[in-house]
Amino acid sequence: MKIFDCPGAPNPARIRIVLAAKGLDSSVEFVKVDLIGAEHKRSEYLEKNPLGTLPALQLDDGTYLAECTAITEYLDNLDGNPILTGKTPKEKGVIHMMQKRAESELIDAVGIYFHHATPGLGDDLRPYKSPEWTDRSVWGNKQRDKALQGMKYFDQVLKSTPFVAGQQFSMADITVFAGLMFADVAGIEIPETCVTLKAWRATVAELPSVKNRSGQNFDAEDLRRLGF
Amino acid sequence: MKIFDCPGAPNPARIRIVLAAKGLDSSVEFVKVDLIGAEHKRSEYLEKNPLGTLPALQLDDGTYLAECTAITEYLDNLDGNPILTGKTPKEKGVIHMMQKRAESELIDAVGIYFHHATPGLGDDLRPYKSPEWTDRSVWGNKQRDKALQGMKYFDQVLKSTPFVAGQQFSMADITVFAGLMFADVAGIEIPETCVTLKAWRATVAELPSVKNRSGQNFDAEDLRRLGF
Repeated sequence: MKIFDCPGAPNPARIRIVLAAKGLDSSVEFVKVDLIGAEHKRSEYLEKNPLGTLPALQLDDGTYLAECTAITEYLDNLDGNPILTGKTPKEKGVIHMMQKRAESELIDAVGIYFHHATPGLGDDLRPYKSPEWTDRSVWGNKQRDKALQGMKYFDQVLKSTPFVAGQQFSMADITVFAGLMFADVAGIEIPETCVTLKAWRATVAELPSVKNRSGQNFDAEDLRRLGF
Repeated sequence: MKIFDCPGAPNPARIRIVLAAKGLDSSVEFVKVDLIGAEHKRSEYLEKNPLGTLPALQLDDGTYLAECTAITEYLDNLDGNPILTGKTPKEKGVIHMMQKRAESELIDAVGIYFHHATPGLGDDLRPYKSPEWTDRSVWGNKQRDKALQGMKYFDQVLKSTPFVAGQQFSMADITVFAGLMFADVAGIEIPETCVTLKAWRATVAELPSVKNRSGQNFDAEDLRRLGF
């Protein structure tokens, strides 16, 4: 299998945690896509994933899978022991519900803010994200508020269960964790009041699959191109 | 089990097709939520689903599930024979990928256009959707173009497979079908060139689970309140 992604980016991080949790790191070949140079918006990559998002998984039969939930379902079920997507109907339902909320209320909201209301990933990606670029987009800034609300929602959820979708670590936790990583990059701070969310984040950061995943940071060269 | 929804609305229709496909119609009690009166944005419903979307499923143990993908995963796996969400890892991956695309590229885009760039569901729902109501929202109209692109994408997909995620009818077909229902209501016509999508739609409309699902139309009283 091949993973087309960019180390250090938030959605790729979700799948790299899944790979580590499933012990599949050594079963995949990582192929770097130049995210900052907008390689994922050019035809060679769009043939793999027409929506131009990272990551994409190429199966050994040539099939491409995109979208983190879909890739996670595939990888998690390969060994017949789904530890991240649920075993019982109720587990599956709750995990998918919380996964969707982690996307719409956190990681996707942060992404819209980052790409539409901050300088984002720089000049090369700009035309694909916001032709009428502005650093104070009303819509983008609304998404910042939405992400902050999302953090408060997950803080509340975590007051009654150790993990986002219940007693077990699941793909929904991975998505919230990656959402908070992205929020750091975008400059959205977790509200002071969200002490439960912060404690959960510290716990999750120490899980072996999270701590030992491959490719945790952007390449030094990419960071230089972004002006860091 | 109880389903909280509104007959005739597009996302509720997705779950009503799932219920019919799984032979579960008679196992659930339908509780009507006054969508046009914005009952789903008031506290009694928000306790069931904090995001205020329809439908929600209440399990017999009191747990609430929201989000169509999550409810479908639950219902489809109840009998241990998932016919709509995939049996093999690859089926699960492809179905979830196409489900996500059917949402982001079609039904969600149509929904944004409908609520932000048309009069939508009328006065009661308006404050929750667009405080600065306008019938020519730039963002809303962009989503119309996105939905049209989505239709062309699915037309292309259906040129090589009979159903959206491959050889079998799946939840991704249900979502595209409901997206096209919603497009009718929103006044977005399927492009003339999408002959394969139109033929697929005619086939799907005749499937027993689609044709015989309960609650296909809005109530006459609701339609009168909307000015029809």
